[in-house]
Amino acid sequence: MYFTRAIQPLIDIALAEDIGTGDVTTLTTVSANAIAIAEFMVKDNGIIAGLPTAQQVFHTLDHSIKFETLIIDGSPVSTGDIVARVTGSARVLLTAERTALNFLQHLSGIATTTANYVAAVKGTRARIVDTRKTLPGMRVLAKYAVCMGGGSNHRFSLADGVLIKDNHIAAAGGISQAICAARAWVPHTLKIEVETESRAMVEEAVLAGADIIMLDNMSLAEMRSCVEFIAGRALTEASGGVNLTTVREIAECGVDLISVGALTHSVNALDISLNFLG
Amino acid sequence: MYFTRAIQPLIDIALAEDIGTGDVTTLTTVSANAIAIAEFMVKDNGIIAGLPTAQQVFHTLDHSIKFETLIIDGSPVSTGDIVARVTGSARVLLTAERTALNFLQHLSGIATTTANYVAAVKGTRARIVDTRKTLPGMRVLAKYAVCMGGGSNHRFSLADGVLIKDNHIAAAGGISQAICAARAWVPHTLKIEVETESRAMVEEAVLAGADIIMLDNMSLAEMRSCVEFIAGRALTEASGGVNLTTVREIAECGVDLISVGALTHSVNALDISLNFLG
Amino acid sequence: MYFTRAIQPLIDIALAEDIGTGDVTTLTTVSANAIAIAEFMVKDNGIIAGLPTAQQVFHTLDHSIKFETLIIDGSPVSTGDIVARVTGSARVLLTAERTALNFLQHLSGIATTTANYVAAVKGTRARIVDTRKTLPGMRVLAKYAVCMGGGSNHRFSLADGVLIKDNHIAAAGGISQAICAARAWVPHTLKIEVETESRAMVEEAVLAGADIIMLDNMSLAEMRSCVEFIAGRALTEASGGVNLTTVREIAECGVDLISVGALTHSVNALDISLNFLG
Amino acid sequence: MYFTRAIQPLIDIALAEDIGTGDVTTLTTVSANAIAIAEFMVKDNGIIAGLPTAQQVFHTLDHSIKFETLIIDGSPVSTGDIVARVTGSARVLLTAERTALNFLQHLSGIATTTANYVAAVKGTRARIVDTRKTLPGMRVLAKYAVCMGGGSNHRFSLADGVLIKDNHIAAAGGISQAICAARAWVPHTLKIEVETESRAMVEEAVLAGADIIMLDNMSLAEMRSCVEFIAGRALTEASGGVNLTTVREIAECGVDLISVGALTHSVNALDISLNFLG
Amino acid sequence: MYFTRAIQPLIDIALAEDIGTGDVTTLTTVSANAIAIAEFMVKDNGIIAGLPTAQQVFHTLDHSIKFETLIIDGSPVSTGDIVARVTGSARVLLTAERTALNFLQHLSGIATTTANYVAAVKGTRARIVDTRKTLPGMRVLAKYAVCMGGGSNHRFSLADGVLIKDNHIAAAGGISQAICAARAWVPHTLKIEVETESRAMVEEAVLAGADIIMLDNMSLAEMRSCVEFIAGRALTEASGGVNLTTVREIAECGVDLISVGALTHSVNALDISLNFLG
Amino acid sequence: MYFTRAIQPLIDIALAEDIGTGDVTTLTTVSANAIAIAEFMVKDNGIIAGLPTAQQVFHTLDHSIKFETLIIDGSPVSTGDIVARVTGSARVLLTAERTALNFLQHLSGIATTTANYVAAVKGTRARIVDTRKTLPGMRVLAKYAVCMGGGSNHRFSLADGVLIKDNHIAAAGGISQAICAARAWVPHTLKIEVETESRAMVEEAVLAGADIIMLDNMSLAEMRSCVEFIAGRALTEASGGVNLTTVREIAECGVDLISVGALTHSVNALDISLNFLG
Repeated sequence: MYFTRAIQPLIDIALAEDIGTGDVTTLTTVSANAIAIAEFMVKDNGIIAGLPTAQQVFHTLDHSIKFETLIIDGSPVSTGDIVARVTGSARVLLTAERTALNFLQHLSGIATTTANYVAAVKGTRARIVDTRKTLPGMRVLAKYAVCMGGGSNHRFSLADGVLIKDNHIAAAGGISQAICAARAWVPHTLKIEVETESRAMVEEAVLAGADIIMLDNMSLAEMRSCVEFIAGRALTEASGGVNLTTVREIAECGVDLISVGALTHSVNALDISLNFLG
Repeated sequence: MYFTRAIQPLIDIALAEDIGTGDVTTLTTVSANAIAIAEFMVKDNGIIAGLPTAQQVFHTLDHSIKFETLIIDGSPVSTGDIVARVTGSARVLLTAERTALNFLQHLSGIATTTANYVAAVKGTRARIVDTRKTLPGMRVLAKYAVCMGGGSNHRFSLADGVLIKDNHIAAAGGISQAICAARAWVPHTLKIEVETESRAMVEEAVLAGADIIMLDNMSLAEMRSCVEFIAGRALTEASGGVNLTTVREIAECGVDLISVGALTHSVNALDISLNFLG
Repeated sequence: MYFTRAIQPLIDIALAEDIGTGDVTTLTTVSANAIAIAEFMVKDNGIIAGLPTAQQVFHTLDHSIKFETLIIDGSPVSTGDIVARVTGSARVLLTAERTALNFLQHLSGIATTTANYVAAVKGTRARIVDTRKTLPGMRVLAKYAVCMGGGSNHRFSLADGVLIKDNHIAAAGGISQAICAARAWVPHTLKIEVETESRAMVEEAVLAGADIIMLDNMSLAEMRSCVEFIAGRALTEASGGVNLTTVREIAECGVDLISVGALTHSVNALDISLNFLG
Repeated sequence: MYFTRAIQPLIDIALAEDIGTGDVTTLTTVSANAIAIAEFMVKDNGIIAGLPTAQQVFHTLDHSIKFETLIIDGSPVSTGDIVARVTGSARVLLTAERTALNFLQHLSGIATTTANYVAAVKGTRARIVDTRKTLPGMRVLAKYAVCMGGGSNHRFSLADGVLIKDNHIAAAGGISQAICAARAWVPHTLKIEVETESRAMVEEAVLAGADIIMLDNMSLAEMRSCVEFIAGRALTEASGGVNLTTVREIAECGVDLISVGALTHSVNALDISLNFLG
Repeated sequence: MYFTRAIQPLIDIALAEDIGTGDVTTLTTVSANAIAIAEFMVKDNGIIAGLPTAQQVFHTLDHSIKFETLIIDGSPVSTGDIVARVTGSARVLLTAERTALNFLQHLSGIATTTANYVAAVKGTRARIVDTRKTLPGMRVLAKYAVCMGGGSNHRFSLADGVLIKDNHIAAAGGISQAICAARAWVPHTLKIEVETESRAMVEEAVLAGADIIMLDNMSLAEMRSCVEFIAGRALTEASGGVNLTTVREIAECGVDLISVGALTHSVNALDISLNFLG
Repeated sequence: MYFTRAIQPLIDIALAEDIGTGDVTTLTTVSANAIAIAEFMVKDNGIIAGLPTAQQVFHTLDHSIKFETLIIDGSPVSTGDIVARVTGSARVLLTAERTALNFLQHLSGIATTTANYVAAVKGTRARIVDTRKTLPGMRVLAKYAVCMGGGSNHRFSLADGVLIKDNHIAAAGGISQAICAARAWVPHTLKIEVETESRAMVEEAVLAGADIIMLDNMSLAEMRSCVEFIAGRALTEASGGVNLTTVREIAECGVDLISVGALTHSVNALDISLNFLG
């Protein structure tokens, strides 16, 4: 659900920083003609994500590498599962191994954490969404991994969504003024979201016609009150203080969306290794 | 301790993916002439790292932004500390905020974790070193952050260090053959490291003149035995199964280096925010 | 209303293709130390747009060039008006002249045509919007010029708006299915638009909850009937067969938006020259 | 008649700006495995140009797309003509459609206008040539389209031709001095052209050995007088005030070349659509 | 006499390949605040060329470096001459030193050799010109250095000059056919050159209207005969078997141009060092 | 023994600077469908190096070109030897010819010179190594060619080797201080080299634990004395004043390495041509 060419520059940077002028160990000990087979084995439980990216890493170095995906992204995996198999030049496999794993382990880590949040709110109306707190260069992939974990995406960039925060409100002279200014210039295809911190701000935002209202760092009681007031006139998004302990009770306030920065800014890599056969 | 131009492409990618064709919220609500002041405030305890990178992010957008660093990278910080102050175009500050924070929180997270490992081995001869398990594009910065946390760096890439692993040994026909092949072609300025999994392999590596010997996934007893056998004839590096619970007893085996993938592959962002004044 | 760094690659390409290895005429006939002053003079009536881009062209070659903007983008201009003045190295002025003019004349042409369409629908509720029929590389600038002419922007790219056309509907198995599929994966910040060719399709789209409905190539009667049926439940956009002769009667059907490809795909450059003083 | 790699950067920019992080409509409604066939149909009369570029656009996204050219560039076409057929991934066809059409319609527009000028001077010795008034990034393609319309090319850039204008003459201290300075440094493979505005300047340019003399904004009588004086000692180029009404009488003055900025700076796109079959 | 931006990509590559992720020696031993002064001293006799490039190297790393040029490019220099002085960050000076010297020594080597050839033909009508036998990436700079040594430039690329060789003649079906085909499509601003190997070919080329005739690998007698036959109807260029021993007698055959590949393909670096003061 | 992707940017620059917007001679005289066969013939005696690069040049333009390597890099060749054969589009062969030859002749020149130095020290323990005095952009290829000539490589960049020179020693406050500072920060995989100019400096460097000691510009007697003192405690490298006349007596001093700048900074191209068959 993303455009693979859009991530090629990051793959090129990742390979360049890891390979530099050449993998001197492999070039001097492994024959140019040697062929190898290796398998990606998961060593923990979680959700796999990033196999197409791992494949793109190998194909960036050598289009003739055969990459067999044995399970699709978004699937639950357990210790010992083989998720993909690569066959081709032993030199290329050894040289690309670390870069492919770095992508795969990180993205699977994101998907796994997301799935935990999604499970925690099961049965409520709330959808778990990500933020722009992604690691540099990883925006598209991180958001893809969130989807693979069952979450949904917030805006991708500052260009494809309007999110009016306190500083924008202050600069524009008020919530209505800010919404009005945005509406006048921004494509009609984008919804307008306002970040609010109180019931009063929520009321002003609804009156001004906000399409989405973020309830930021509110108490559960206040959040419930705001959701009731909004009553479907705008989408509601809870934000701030969200973790696996609190997310369920937040969801039960009736919000449509809960955004979680930790999905992408504090990721535990899923343990995966590449084992060479024979 | 790195070349700042080397990270410019990643900063450019990070800004491009976050800003796209423009920060529509800011462009429509904040005047082009507005000036703002904002402060980076730490909201947890840890080690700060990445302030020069945050500065480079702002200066990439606008050279006239004033960035005042109030504390140097590598310093311990606590909740409430102000670590830097930025002054300049309100539009630029708002547009660059997230990208700068994404770098700063991740690098400070690395430094903080590293410092915990370094503290855990205090008093032993062991140095904590990183691995190539860094996030795509982040190699140079992640390794810098490890240094800021008191750790040391392993090789930066496959080009500037020789690390002979099992597949290389198999392909070359043995440890001595692999070392010999590498020595013949690789610049004399690089040391040669061999990954070993047993005392027998260690003995062969020492005889073949390895400069560094990695003791991979060994029991404490085996590791101690190997360190004794090597007796200073090569540097020793422990690897595998290292975490904050086990690192001290590994260090007490007498190894020179302990490499820890988690320093860079499973990072908890240090919580930092940018607060606009006035 | 756009991010100036986003257009730097196009400016770089434009300068590179025009200058190549060097402006041999200027390098051999004009001294490196010569200073010149020149003025941009409009030679027709229209709306000026692109002065910041012209400035960016000069500053790309030489940051010390002084560029004085005498009138802001979006202003009406007439034959003989001086819109900007540049002062600096005569070599740089002569070498950058054509590239700066090529941008300025094209963008002013877009703004001028847009203003004619906007004038033609004055007093109706219809806004004139652009399309993705822009010249390669010119997307951001062309859409900016449309705004300067008083028009509004449709989505910038295939990533920041959903527009479900006949082929998408066929592939998804119907309008509701297509809307549903998009809604499930696309960020909640984006509105969903459906292209319709008949009243029946419009009815299905409204029921399926489309946010925007495009009325494509409909007769005026059919369009009026659809607008009445929709009755504010979605934004309405007229498309197809729009020109300066037909636009008013289309607007009078009550649509919210009229999209015009010719604003950007068939542009008459506004005649502007750079006159060197003294 | 151009180097296709030279235009790849512009194609990459065009696709990147149109696709961004992904065509969300197509990715969510069309299956990754769907295959489609579509045809480029001309909807007006003119000269086709740009089919190889349209093909390059599709192949940039996916080398396996089959692109069948049914008529070669430079051919006259009429409403209803099918000029090419594409077969392959439905997703790729839908995603690349607009970018391919934007190139094809613009280039065919240039070829069509050029052909009109060429027809207007038929039977005279005059060749219609283009200028550097091309849209940013389009230099090579625009000049190619001029050839396809039966016109000829002037210099491609400031590096591959010498054109001495008034400011160069003033800076060098006279026509002879300017020619002399250029001749001393410029490769002997380039001809030297001088822009003149009077018979006196023409005389000086001929004496100084100019290879080409531009007659800029002259009356027909003055132009005739200059052509007679030059008498084949240099190529003659008419410039300024050229349109379809005036071009014939200018040509009848006996000039070798007539340069027309409007060929490339004010282009009406030729109407072409991509129709998906059954 | 070239466009400095055109060589920036090569400077960037040169610095990147030499600095990589950082100059570890300098970063660890020299303080970030240390200031140094250093002088470029020539250690042999020759012609200096490349000082602006050396300056561009330093300024690429740090705009605040002060670079004082003490003698202009193209000047003769002798052992012990100081040609430039740089002042600024000691780290930057040490890190950029080798890259700056690599450019400067190579370009001065080209200028020095060229000057020897120019001196050898003094008093004849022949100009010494270069070829396309330049080192990868160095085209613009190498040709500039040839000018600094008193030579002249042949075409810069395959795009800005027509040179019809044996394979082109064979493919086109004869010299006249080749000239005719080129003349029909190539900008009228470019001269057409034909490579000939016999008096018969020369005669055909003159009749077909070649602007320049290359006399390739001819005996002195044959060359003299050809020059007499051509009698000023085309420029004449001697090529093949040119060295410092033969160049004078070739020049005395009366040719206009003598092209010498060795000027740029076999260059002895001029010995230059950067001495740090105090 | 290098990563071929690492040199792609230089190949791209080399082709771009040579082809520009197109090889106008070939495009106008040779049919797009013509197929040709051509052979690389050596016209002097030497060592061939660079055939894979020549192949990469052709394949960059057209993957379907068949490139047959008839002899491997590093082999001695003599006048008349055919080293490779290319078959494919005549246009591509003619257009890529010069760029391919420029690489091949330069790299073979380096290999040939290196082989002469290696032959001169045959029977001693000394290895001939290169320096960072390579031409801009050519670092990786030049060092590869040195290996093909039988030499060895010194560090590739300032990042993958520590070489402490006089200015570093002065800045750090002494040899021990400099070694100590480097050891503290630099990866443990890199050896530390110190440049010395006297026996006293050598003694200090040995005591401080230098891994490699450069003996710079020493007399033979002094060098011998230093080698004896070092007695295997560090590698020894002779530098300065090395040429084919002096290299043998330097080697006989017992040094491990002799570095020679002229291998790469003053290269005589090996004469090679591409002959078209039939």
